Amino acid sequence: MKVTAAEIYKSVELIRSQSPVVHNITNYVVMNSTANALLAIGASPVMAHAQEEVEEMVNISSALVINIGTLSEHWISSMFKAVSQAIKKGIPVILDPVGAGATAYRTKTARELINSESLTIIRGNASEIVALYDDKSKTRGVDSASSSDAAIEIAQKLSEIHKCIICVSGANDYIVSKEKIMKIKNGHPLMTKVTGLGCTASALCGAFAAVEKKPFTATVKAMAVMGIAGEMAAAVAAGPGSLQASFLDCLYCITEDDIKQRLKIED
Amino acid sequence: MKVTAAEIYKSVELIRSQSPVVHNITNYVVMNSTANALLAIGASPVMAHAQEEVEEMVNISSALVINIGTLSEHWISSMFKAVSQAIKKGIPVILDPVGAGATAYRTKTARELINSESLTIIRGNASEIVALYDDKSKTRGVDSASSSDAAIEIAQKLSEIHKCIICVSGANDYIVSKEKIMKIKNGHPLMTKVTGLGCTASALCGAFAAVEKKPFTATVKAMAVMGIAGEMAAAVAAGPGSLQASFLDCLYCITEDDIKQRLKIED
Amino acid sequence: MKVTAAEIYKSVELIRSQSPVVHNITNYVVMNSTANALLAIGASPVMAHAQEEVEEMVNISSALVINIGTLSEHWISSMFKAVSQAIKKGIPVILDPVGAGATAYRTKTARELINSESLTIIRGNASEIVALYDDKSKTRGVDSASSSDAAIEIAQKLSEIHKCIICVSGANDYIVSKEKIMKIKNGHPLMTKVTGLGCTASALCGAFAAVEKKPFTATVKAMAVMGIAGEMAAAVAAGPGSLQASFLDCLYCITEDDIKQRLKIED
Repeated sequence: MKVTAAEIYKSVELIRSQSPVVHNITNYVVMNSTANALLAIGASPVMAHAQEEVEEMVNISSALVINIGTLSEHWISSMFKAVSQAIKKGIPVILDPVGAGATAYRTKTARELINSESLTIIRGNASEIVALYDDKSKTRGVDSASSSDAAIEIAQKLSEIHKCIICVSGANDYIVSKEKIMKIKNGHPLMTKVTGLGCTASALCGAFAAVEKKPFTATVKAMAVMGIAGEMAAAVAAGPGSLQASFLDCLYCITEDDIKQRLKIED
Repeated sequence: MKVTAAEIYKSVELIRSQSPVVHNITNYVVMNSTANALLAIGASPVMAHAQEEVEEMVNISSALVINIGTLSEHWISSMFKAVSQAIKKGIPVILDPVGAGATAYRTKTARELINSESLTIIRGNASEIVALYDDKSKTRGVDSASSSDAAIEIAQKLSEIHKCIICVSGANDYIVSKEKIMKIKNGHPLMTKVTGLGCTASALCGAFAAVEKKPFTATVKAMAVMGIAGEMAAAVAAGPGSLQASFLDCLYCITEDDIKQRLKIED
Repeated sequence: MKVTAAEIYKSVELIRSQSPVVHNITNYVVMNSTANALLAIGASPVMAHAQEEVEEMVNISSALVINIGTLSEHWISSMFKAVSQAIKKGIPVILDPVGAGATAYRTKTARELINSESLTIIRGNASEIVALYDDKSKTRGVDSASSSDAAIEIAQKLSEIHKCIICVSGANDYIVSKEKIMKIKNGHPLMTKVTGLGCTASALCGAFAAVEKKPFTATVKAMAVMGIAGEMAAAVAAGPGSLQASFLDCLYCITEDDIKQRLKIED
């Protein structure tokens, strides 16, 4: 399987022409930057978290992105409601398990979300993905489990059990299904100095999954565009503050040629 | 009636010299950018949403801006409390009915806010303004109702019924009262790719209404400055990320000459 | 006592190499910019406010920053829980009493936080610091109390009573303990036109206190870096929008030489 620059750009064009509505129930820290990234790539972000309206908002959306970065009780109830409605309606659901493993509350919430319904894509860093896997017989320590190799192995198990695509992101991003693994080597270290670019990646997965039916391919495309726009921004940025602004400019301006010149995917 | 560049700039100078306190109960997505826009034009933003303190905060404020972009139960109660206190105290109240029409919860909340008390200014896009009008005999479809013409007609009715100024914003902004309509042709399409610039416009209406007693004129001035700063920013921006930063720079630096050269108002 | 540029930069290097986790329970307006400032200087920000997880989050943190900018009931409970756990664990606790004095709710909450446990550093502007001091016999008016001199006098009393460091920030920043006062003259007026830079200063106090055991010295270092990065940013910014981005760039890039050339401390 191959994903070419032309195919990736085709999805960018679809997002720009169709402006799919992406419903986000996300954390307070990144709401502004997430909405701006979705607008920059051409999607239409909505944010709504009240139980009174999440189902209705899902009904007018083409993808749902759930991010547990700043949890609380009422928000969790709304997340479950929104996910159920999204599954019922048949739109893709993306989960960003921010901080899973850091506190029991986050780990529990993320696992319950995964177990309750069949999600489409889960994107997290190695330690978050590992934390999603509840293997009581497992005795491996945190360090080894957080390595990319161990995380990918667990991602494959999670993908098989929960029938969804797992993206383990980091210096390299791994898109993992039961059958295959793809590695994306785009991106730039300065991106780790801007808050919420992981959350942005999850939101972009939502935008791409709204226009690309195959979730594995949608995730590959989203992560490639994310990494390439980050590289382009880092090339002109004086630091993380200007990177944040340039990143949005690059998402907005990205061309097929930009993708062709920079794309680094490995099977 | 005319509103000249000199008159608009006079209000800018008043905002800069008096730094009116503008109390915002607004949505999570735009809080940071709203506060920054108010600071950039010279006002003093405060944000407070707890029922325990909204009335006290209104008491030290010169305008109140209510924005329903990320609603929930407690926030709605606080909005009503704050609006009542603002009316009692005689300061202008601006409503931004974000997403009215998208969900029943938002439509209902916005209508209740409008019906409960006499607001000063309501600013929204065409479909939001149309959603505020509860005409049970109306059978027009959503499409026609969302056109500018239909929205302006409804805005006039709303203005008459609720005795407030309605601003229907979009590619052109229409400031509407029972007696008159003014059209502002400033602004730039790139502004639609930055989240919350509509919310910023509502906040600026608050700042201008704090120093300009006539609400119609205050709205015209706010929307003109908004559009002109947006044009100035778009002229130097490489995309929506840099536009967001430049827009604040331009609000901060705007001169009478900038306004004179760019102002496009039609009666 | 002296704090040299070399000593300040040493702490910057420690933050960059150790990436201390700084737990923030802060306001909605500044969450994004606070997280970005902590990342830019080299720390690892976390934000969590649910009662279910704040203690656990404190347990993996090296400093706790409490900011009352957008209070509500549940958040206050979590603040108390987090502070208790931080004291128990022995990590520094920084309080930013945003808006103390503006409403009774904020003043009361800030005072209760101060009285309940022994905090490490309190950073606020003159009127906020004055509002923390509950002297029933005091009859001085607000104006005199808000002057720097009066605020410093009160800061000394607060420091003695509550055994913590007080930073009264403004055009000049005063770091105050029972025994000594240090004045930092760095900073730039344009910084007051960006929302939340005071909150950022408090968060930086957390990052510096995580690597510098003496809280007085940690506060001096944090405020000096804050002011110097602000000056450097103002030198290249076209207004408050570009200042916000440049400020993060400067925090990220600041060198010992930058500090040496600009540092203005007075005993």
